[in-house]
Amino acid sequence: MFEDELKDLHVRFSEMGMMVNEAVYKSVKSFINHDKDLARQVIKDDHKINEREMDLENRSFEMVALQQPVTTDLRLIVTVMKASSDLERMGDHAVSIAKSTIRVKGNTRVPAIEKDLGEMAGVVKKMVEESLDAYVKEQADRAVKIADEDHHVNHYSRKIYEQCIKNMQDDPDTVVGSMDYMLVASYLERIGDYVTNICEWVVYLKKGKLVELNSNAKEDNF
Amino acid sequence: MFEDELKDLHVRFSEMGMMVNEAVYKSVKSFINHDKDLARQVIKDDHKINEREMDLENRSFEMVALQQPVTTDLRLIVTVMKASSDLERMGDHAVSIAKSTIRVKGNTRVPAIEKDLGEMAGVVKKMVEESLDAYVKEQADRAVKIADEDHHVNHYSRKIYEQCIKNMQDDPDTVVGSMDYMLVASYLERIGDYVTNICEWVVYLKKGKLVELNSNAKEDNF
Repeated sequence: MFEDELKDLHVRFSEMGMMVNEAVYKSVKSFINHDKDLARQVIKDDHKINEREMDLENRSFEMVALQQPVTTDLRLIVTVMKASSDLERMGDHAVSIAKSTIRVKGNTRVPAIEKDLGEMAGVVKKMVEESLDAYVKEQADRAVKIADEDHHVNHYSRKIYEQCIKNMQDDPDTVVGSMDYMLVASYLERIGDYVTNICEWVVYLKKGKLVELNSNAKEDNF
Repeated sequence: MFEDELKDLHVRFSEMGMMVNEAVYKSVKSFINHDKDLARQVIKDDHKINEREMDLENRSFEMVALQQPVTTDLRLIVTVMKASSDLERMGDHAVSIAKSTIRVKGNTRVPAIEKDLGEMAGVVKKMVEESLDAYVKEQADRAVKIADEDHHVNHYSRKIYEQCIKNMQDDPDTVVGSMDYMLVASYLERIGDYVTNICEWVVYLKKGKLVELNSNAKEDNF
């Protein structure tokens, strides 16, 4: 039954979202706690996310080809095709954070920045979860609000950037470590951008129209 | 005629690719030459890229809904749907580079790094052009080779990173400027990642199979 296949596609997409959310969460936790084992686990599990993307891709393609859905159903399938690519790339950035964790050796640590990174990760995690929930519930207005939360992510970026600049200017020993902080912040920011994309797909799903949500936020930071 | 519509879609996609390529080229040129007017032009023209994405999106959706293509034709349309999102985001990164250009004021300049950035941009530009050409000609093997060029981009990233670290450690006055260099390098690297995505779509178009091209390259840098 087409309806069942569609429901199944929905469920599999949500599962993929949860896998990605877990990867993001674990990668930041591993970075902040210097937990290389946890970082390795994120890297090791990434193939599951990639496989799920391919699975969704194949299923949606076949559904369109064999069942020739129109209007709402077609839009739902197209959205899964597009949004699953975004989820997969969020997973790639979690892997990047995990790889940074493994690379770090004996940098001078700055607790204040690590605290901000942790908070920034918390905001991103919440955005990931909420956007997936809005997706499942097809709540376009809520998606617009969630995308707007990206301003908080950018606020943390800016704050971390300024702290890093100050540290690096005051103490050359913090240069390498600060660059790592900047790196992780930039990955989190990119993940936030992908959440915005997911929110755009929710609006598209509901209204059939492509919108660009908070494009300024996307462009103003690193 | 469906065949004509399909050809038209192809042409419009290629045109979008050329618009993006021009935006990337101009944005880097503006950064290196401190040409704020050129940077403003990139920002001003970005809406044309966004509009073209929406146009492609609407056309492909309608073609699928009304003509119900299967196999090769469907794959071609799905690829345009996906790859046009990637192109649009490459345009966003060009805008980010242009915005960095406008923000920069009186930083201490490092000619050696600016030279590397220029070369890095050259490699990225060539990759953008070649991937679009491989797309139009549906050359999957060539697409794999082009994605492999991303290693050169990463080589420049690494080199610029090391130079920046050294500068910042030796001279606190270079901290702010070096961060700008890093920023622009990271945008170029992201654009390179999107070229890799385009190459993946070329393979998908030709072989009907999702592949992940040089995922290591994607993950190993900032």
